[in-house]
Amino acid sequence: MKRLLITGAAGNLGRLARARLGHLADVLRLSDIADLDPAGPGEEVVNCDLADADAVHDLVQDCDGILHLGGVSVERPWDQIQRGNITGVYNLYEAARAHGLPRILYASSNHAIGYYRQDEVIDTTAPQKPDGLYGVSKCFGEAMASLYHSKFGQETALIRIGSCFEKPRDRRMLATWLSPDDFVRLVECVFRVPMLGCPIIWGVSDNDEGWWNTETARLIGWRPKDNSETFRAEIEAAAPCPPKDAPESVYQGGKFIAEPIYKD
Amino acid sequence: MKRLLITGAAGNLGRLARARLGHLADVLRLSDIADLDPAGPGEEVVNCDLADADAVHDLVQDCDGILHLGGVSVERPWDQIQRGNITGVYNLYEAARAHGLPRILYASSNHAIGYYRQDEVIDTTAPQKPDGLYGVSKCFGEAMASLYHSKFGQETALIRIGSCFEKPRDRRMLATWLSPDDFVRLVECVFRVPMLGCPIIWGVSDNDEGWWNTETARLIGWRPKDNSETFRAEIEAAAPCPPKDAPESVYQGGKFIAEPIYKD
Amino acid sequence: MKRLLITGAAGNLGRLARARLGHLADVLRLSDIADLDPAGPGEEVVNCDLADADAVHDLVQDCDGILHLGGVSVERPWDQIQRGNITGVYNLYEAARAHGLPRILYASSNHAIGYYRQDEVIDTTAPQKPDGLYGVSKCFGEAMASLYHSKFGQETALIRIGSCFEKPRDRRMLATWLSPDDFVRLVECVFRVPMLGCPIIWGVSDNDEGWWNTETARLIGWRPKDNSETFRAEIEAAAPCPPKDAPESVYQGGKFIAEPIYKD
Amino acid sequence: MKRLLITGAAGNLGRLARARLGHLADVLRLSDIADLDPAGPGEEVVNCDLADADAVHDLVQDCDGILHLGGVSVERPWDQIQRGNITGVYNLYEAARAHGLPRILYASSNHAIGYYRQDEVIDTTAPQKPDGLYGVSKCFGEAMASLYHSKFGQETALIRIGSCFEKPRDRRMLATWLSPDDFVRLVECVFRVPMLGCPIIWGVSDNDEGWWNTETARLIGWRPKDNSETFRAEIEAAAPCPPKDAPESVYQGGKFIAEPIYKD
Amino acid sequence: MKRLLITGAAGNLGRLARARLGHLADVLRLSDIADLDPAGPGEEVVNCDLADADAVHDLVQDCDGILHLGGVSVERPWDQIQRGNITGVYNLYEAARAHGLPRILYASSNHAIGYYRQDEVIDTTAPQKPDGLYGVSKCFGEAMASLYHSKFGQETALIRIGSCFEKPRDRRMLATWLSPDDFVRLVECVFRVPMLGCPIIWGVSDNDEGWWNTETARLIGWRPKDNSETFRAEIEAAAPCPPKDAPESVYQGGKFIAEPIYKD
Amino acid sequence: MKRLLITGAAGNLGRLARARLGHLADVLRLSDIADLDPAGPGEEVVNCDLADADAVHDLVQDCDGILHLGGVSVERPWDQIQRGNITGVYNLYEAARAHGLPRILYASSNHAIGYYRQDEVIDTTAPQKPDGLYGVSKCFGEAMASLYHSKFGQETALIRIGSCFEKPRDRRMLATWLSPDDFVRLVECVFRVPMLGCPIIWGVSDNDEGWWNTETARLIGWRPKDNSETFRAEIEAAAPCPPKDAPESVYQGGKFIAEPIYKD
Repeated sequence: MKRLLITGAAGNLGRLARARLGHLADVLRLSDIADLDPAGPGEEVVNCDLADADAVHDLVQDCDGILHLGGVSVERPWDQIQRGNITGVYNLYEAARAHGLPRILYASSNHAIGYYRQDEVIDTTAPQKPDGLYGVSKCFGEAMASLYHSKFGQETALIRIGSCFEKPRDRRMLATWLSPDDFVRLVECVFRVPMLGCPIIWGVSDNDEGWWNTETARLIGWRPKDNSETFRAEIEAAAPCPPKDAPESVYQGGKFIAEPIYKD
Repeated sequence: MKRLLITGAAGNLGRLARARLGHLADVLRLSDIADLDPAGPGEEVVNCDLADADAVHDLVQDCDGILHLGGVSVERPWDQIQRGNITGVYNLYEAARAHGLPRILYASSNHAIGYYRQDEVIDTTAPQKPDGLYGVSKCFGEAMASLYHSKFGQETALIRIGSCFEKPRDRRMLATWLSPDDFVRLVECVFRVPMLGCPIIWGVSDNDEGWWNTETARLIGWRPKDNSETFRAEIEAAAPCPPKDAPESVYQGGKFIAEPIYKD
Repeated sequence: MKRLLITGAAGNLGRLARARLGHLADVLRLSDIADLDPAGPGEEVVNCDLADADAVHDLVQDCDGILHLGGVSVERPWDQIQRGNITGVYNLYEAARAHGLPRILYASSNHAIGYYRQDEVIDTTAPQKPDGLYGVSKCFGEAMASLYHSKFGQETALIRIGSCFEKPRDRRMLATWLSPDDFVRLVECVFRVPMLGCPIIWGVSDNDEGWWNTETARLIGWRPKDNSETFRAEIEAAAPCPPKDAPESVYQGGKFIAEPIYKD
Repeated sequence: MKRLLITGAAGNLGRLARARLGHLADVLRLSDIADLDPAGPGEEVVNCDLADADAVHDLVQDCDGILHLGGVSVERPWDQIQRGNITGVYNLYEAARAHGLPRILYASSNHAIGYYRQDEVIDTTAPQKPDGLYGVSKCFGEAMASLYHSKFGQETALIRIGSCFEKPRDRRMLATWLSPDDFVRLVECVFRVPMLGCPIIWGVSDNDEGWWNTETARLIGWRPKDNSETFRAEIEAAAPCPPKDAPESVYQGGKFIAEPIYKD
Repeated sequence: MKRLLITGAAGNLGRLARARLGHLADVLRLSDIADLDPAGPGEEVVNCDLADADAVHDLVQDCDGILHLGGVSVERPWDQIQRGNITGVYNLYEAARAHGLPRILYASSNHAIGYYRQDEVIDTTAPQKPDGLYGVSKCFGEAMASLYHSKFGQETALIRIGSCFEKPRDRRMLATWLSPDDFVRLVECVFRVPMLGCPIIWGVSDNDEGWWNTETARLIGWRPKDNSETFRAEIEAAAPCPPKDAPESVYQGGKFIAEPIYKD
Repeated sequence: MKRLLITGAAGNLGRLARARLGHLADVLRLSDIADLDPAGPGEEVVNCDLADADAVHDLVQDCDGILHLGGVSVERPWDQIQRGNITGVYNLYEAARAHGLPRILYASSNHAIGYYRQDEVIDTTAPQKPDGLYGVSKCFGEAMASLYHSKFGQETALIRIGSCFEKPRDRRMLATWLSPDDFVRLVECVFRVPMLGCPIIWGVSDNDEGWWNTETARLIGWRPKDNSETFRAEIEAAAPCPPKDAPESVYQGGKFIAEPIYKD
């Protein structure tokens, strides 16, 4: 690619992407509503509010691919979620439509299905069960991507990311961990496959523990290689096992289950 | 019920509901952003913009049930859809949560799945395939209802309405028609069943032609009785058969498939 | 048939069977552990404890068909259930094997799946979820019937009976009611079809309300004709609607959900 | 339609079609390899061997629709089946492709799935299990129709016909009977629906007894109205019940199960 | 755990558990109806008949976990199976309920589904097809575990064990082998996962050959590591291949298929 | 085996089989309609037209197993496909029936399902969607094998071969590649398993990229070991990525999608 846009580049995953994905394009265009480090070689830095349609229109121009990590990524008051994850997603898809339909990797989330229980295995066709307003916004994004694929041929990889950190941080992440290396390979695969369509793919490493049938990963030739098991002893030593009826034990969404509706 | 709220009471379906559902509650509270006829006996009339959170809060107070027909019901520019069908739905569910979780009938739509083809039968677990921004907003509403059910116990009947008119108006409606009488009985059933949960139910009459497995209707004891076949000769005489590759012939969403993204 | 054995003939369903099924065989052999009215014309009366293997052996001799209604039909202390529904079922199948494999209609129960919710539709392949010791014993009976079919060719109709009374007695029975007339036709069909196999069939009338996909009824040519809807007004007038979180509202097993484990 | 081609017009079903379908087109073009009665008003009669590509090419010319009943309809030596049902089907689809893709109703057969048992319900997606060379040829025809639909847009209704006679002729036909009236309505529906695609539909009446989930019939607006139950008493009086392990009792294909491979 | 109860500790699997699972608890309480070796350090030895409710009550007291291997594990006369596997299971679950619901690993068996064929892959939701009285008793145990989970929150891992020996002993065990090491890891996983629920998991190693979709193993973080393929040459050299129509070749239950009903 | 027949031995796969499968039988009988290299030690060479029933009858005599690679393996005019793949398959199965039902490995093809899209994962029960006359002939072969299995007990492994070459030759083959080593092991497994039945198995290596659920491979103990990923860099360097809407990008059948119907 000539230019890959990374939205949400100031966030946890965005910083990782910035540091690791330079080889995918001549230029990384990095965007966030928050401040970003100055542009290095092969980088462009753009401050952009996703809720600003014109700004997003300009942001997408001349990009061959979009790694859409932007917006709110935890439970927040509705207005914030609506601005970043509803209005922002509409703006992004309209901008992409205006600029030749560059392929999009949309960071969806396990919180779109967080109310499934941890004693059941689901695949990507299981009806959504969001666990908060954030999860609802991710369901919305998946629907928007589906529409633009059906109607305009816009391709999107709907990646339901588990928990992407250097290493798992608690018991639940033994099941949901996505290693940075696996994340990088995943992005490579999404932008490499000749025809992508609009598949839903679990963004999760090859962990011994898990709740998700990862079969669709093969559609893009992605085979995760890391395994949270490496960190089990460390995790189990660091924290007592949560009780079996704690939300983080019962539902796939973990602690999000116990979150309230936040007010401004 | 003591008081049933009907939103969108000035619309096509709202007027029908107003005329036919007085027996369901002591008082019908009728609301719309458009002008409504003055309140008759057993009626309250409230002018309300669903995007106004405080107004919706007041609107829902003292209601035992909500027939949510409000918002935009066709393709429109995004801002209109977002105000009515996104912000409005969030406001409605928050108001319901604040006021004791009155049962909701949410008017979802076949346009949440409009990109399925007319040569396939689907059931309510088929992944959504919205056919426009309106359809996307309906997917959003279904996700919001799911969240409030999982997290707070809010009950909602997600009724994917076909085409509710006095009689079918074109070839496609032979498959999607919901007769007014069947609609009335459907609403009765939703507010009568002891435990509702949050099921998806096709809002469609007992037509000979159809694309939807209507099995979940039995969950609420609803058995539609009317059949569009009665009107076939009339319909076929009135209009030539559309070509087999016209959008209205190919996809379940009909003419919505050919709709553009509207701009203000 | 020359001789049809009806076990549990002193029970509610057994008395109905005795009164209505005389046309199915030259002789009805009626059996119960409780006292039975004296044999009328075309009847034989046998007092029999199903836990007595020798007695059951004799009971089955010379029978062409068995309507197995015997055993415990509600929650009871384990010893009673084990005697009637575990030991008794083993004895019955061994006796049938010794006497030429007469076809069996086994009265299974919705309580074998009572922990499914009333807002979901299930079919006969859904994994069992018994709601009490009685329900567990019915799961056992279905497994035993499967074994004898696979291994010896013994045919059994596994009829998961809803609620068979003259008319529905409460709100839940609007969904589970099996009319006596439909029951009689069901028995006729079971003993009439050339090849029965070992299918699971919901024993429920053609009620508007329901939770069960009744597709397998067609395997034996049984089309129920009655509808609990006839009695809805009467039922609803007689009793207030139970709260939506009462066991009888939430789970398909109704009041059995709230039953304890009984001790002698 | 201006001209409807009916192949196999000298056969049982063909004669029925000739007598009953004149209202569907200005002209019925009737074809068979066997002799046909002389053309009446609105009829054309063509003697044609389906294995003769040129003849089939001419036969299809100027036709708006094709009711393909031609070929062999029972077990026969392979050469006969290959000529009529393999070569013949290829010739027919090539002729249709050459002449504007007139819609085709292809008479497939329950013998494409005859090795399913009579104690199981199947739908149209169940993998084929043919019960003879005839059944294999019908699987072939379904595959050919699928190809021409995918590649060229040729529409075909794949009707898996049960047993179409004035009334059922034996016990098995209580499950498989297709009444002549229902057949006529079925053909009307196939040629009436705006977009047909290439669906598989069971050609069976609304019989109480049956093994097939008939859901796809609604795709074309066909609701069968007749019921073999009307004839049950007559059938049962006429013939003793076959033993439960006779082929006609065990498998859906009935007596075809016991047929050998015929040699010339 | 402070104390892990192992029932059936004198059996094949029980001796393995005793030797290998000492690290899971401060104390292993070992129980059997047969004689056991004297208690070593960190061990308690209890002679117990599972059919004796009071004895089982005492046995379970003070235990944090139960590895239930006890009862009959092959085809035996019904009375033996009923005592150990029916009455015994009821007694165990009642004792667990009385003593704070310690987590249970229930040794179910492939013989609960033994009548599936070796040319089909099944998952844990496939309806049971037991292959003998022993298999029926395992179906019963699974139903009992389901009840106690639904009603009381009792957690059970339903492990359908294949063939747990040092190495496979015949051709069939190439598909069903569970290595001792994998068994040990499996038990560790069951007692380690924060929330277990009541899942069914195939107890089988990572063999090249197999009939079971092992997806649910990930629910507890168990990834078997051994592979029967290591022993294939040895097995094939030792015994001729059984004929393809021998029970051990046709059905997943192997030689159990050919077992009779044993009488005392 | 004493004698393994390999049909199509002069073709690409046939030559590979000839070179690599000598250890499976005392004698390899090699057959083709084209010229073959002279017989080496342990080889018999037979020139045979599969459309010649008598010749095929003789060919199969005295064989214990058949690796059926013969017939046409690409799009060709119908007459050629019919001779080799229709008539030839009938002749082969009749010959096998006459000679004791030697086990058959039938080389089916991904072109039997070529019209599925590359953004969906399918398993072996997905309805066929052939992508050409060749694919239709493979659907025919699968149906014929099913018939002979149901009716006569003839066992066949229906191997839907992807692309068997030394290494992948284009982008699509990264998903469809079957390595020669994996092919050899596959054939070994087919002729080694005690009971084969008539399963459909994807003939594809353990590639990172893929569209097929390979679960049934375990039925015969086959675990492919090679991975096209080894060759990705080489492939991608050699050829530009095809456009996402090229047939070879969109459909699983690749370039076959764009093939016409060939005429002689």
